[in-house]
Amino acid sequence: MTTYKKRDFPVSDIRRFLEPGPVVLVSSAWKGERNIMTMGWHMVMEFSPSLVGCLISSGNHSYELVSGSKECVINIPTVELADKVVGIGNCSGSQVDKFKKFKLTTVAGDKVKAPLIAECYANLECRLVDGRLRGKYNFFIFEVVKAHAPASPKYPKTIHYRGDGMFMVAGRSLNLRRLFRPGML
Amino acid sequence: MTTYKKRDFPVSDIRRFLEPGPVVLVSSAWKGERNIMTMGWHMVMEFSPSLVGCLISSGNHSYELVSGSKECVINIPTVELADKVVGIGNCSGSQVDKFKKFKLTTVAGDKVKAPLIAECYANLECRLVDGRLRGKYNFFIFEVVKAHAPASPKYPKTIHYRGDGMFMVAGRSLNLRRLFRPGML
Repeated sequence: MTTYKKRDFPVSDIRRFLEPGPVVLVSSAWKGERNIMTMGWHMVMEFSPSLVGCLISSGNHSYELVSGSKECVINIPTVELADKVVGIGNCSGSQVDKFKKFKLTTVAGDKVKAPLIAECYANLECRLVDGRLRGKYNFFIFEVVKAHAPASPKYPKTIHYRGDGMFMVAGRSLNLRRLFRPGML
Repeated sequence: MTTYKKRDFPVSDIRRFLEPGPVVLVSSAWKGERNIMTMGWHMVMEFSPSLVGCLISSGNHSYELVSGSKECVINIPTVELADKVVGIGNCSGSQVDKFKKFKLTTVAGDKVKAPLIAECYANLECRLVDGRLRGKYNFFIFEVVKAHAPASPKYPKTIHYRGDGMFMVAGRSLNLRRLFRPGML
């Protein structure tokens, strides 16, 4: 398993990891419980403050932990973790400690109590800032208050879910910087 | 330029195209004007009704057209259109007709007045269903009311924006269906 030497990463730049649309692992902790869920439905909503919208279904055990603690960590796995990502989505934290079951290493966060997952490429510590659409859509808006990512590789081999058991693995990079007007990057 | 022979596609299955997180082109029409914008911040929110959350900044000309008409089309381009996708993001529809400038072909929608872009791989006709977070976050929730996609290729070579002029091109497929519990696909 690759381990990453992470450093602080600017929270206003986390689009680099989230905007391409990878499946992520959301970790949470509340009242002595901890959990991980697999999440595919999320989006960047603002650079500064660094906002991310997420769909956490009320059927998930994590819904309670995130709602109660008003915090979570968005962890970005790479293709090496693909089997675990599926496994984590297949079982419920109400019955099993997923950190133990999937042999994942916790790291304490700087700003939230939810644990970071060491084996993931990047970790985004998040606080809930707007839950008004939680009841109707299970939609949470978080602010990324601290981000951890390695200097290298710059572009991780993330996995992107298509449904029906099929993933897309992040492919080649395409540099179109020359086509952008200054200020539009 | 590849042209696609499209057919009706089930709206509850559009995660196949949107969940991996591609950059999309949003087309709109209102009071004799039409426009296209490049959009990277979006997410699936529900299967049925088929809901998609989108960030359309009030600084964009499309914000007015979408807000006024309460409709749009989400068009999914592939890597062949990458230069146009950047060009569309570089200029404002208040000054130029982007369909003409970028030589894109309009197709009439079945359920909305906004035009579909023929050169895109798939087209999702959308109606605004919830705009309550529009004022604070420029956040729109649309329902996909009609979808058009070709039978082949099943997995398009979409492009995924990382910021700073860098895109990721959709890579290889990874079939992990065997690992899923029934009902979790």
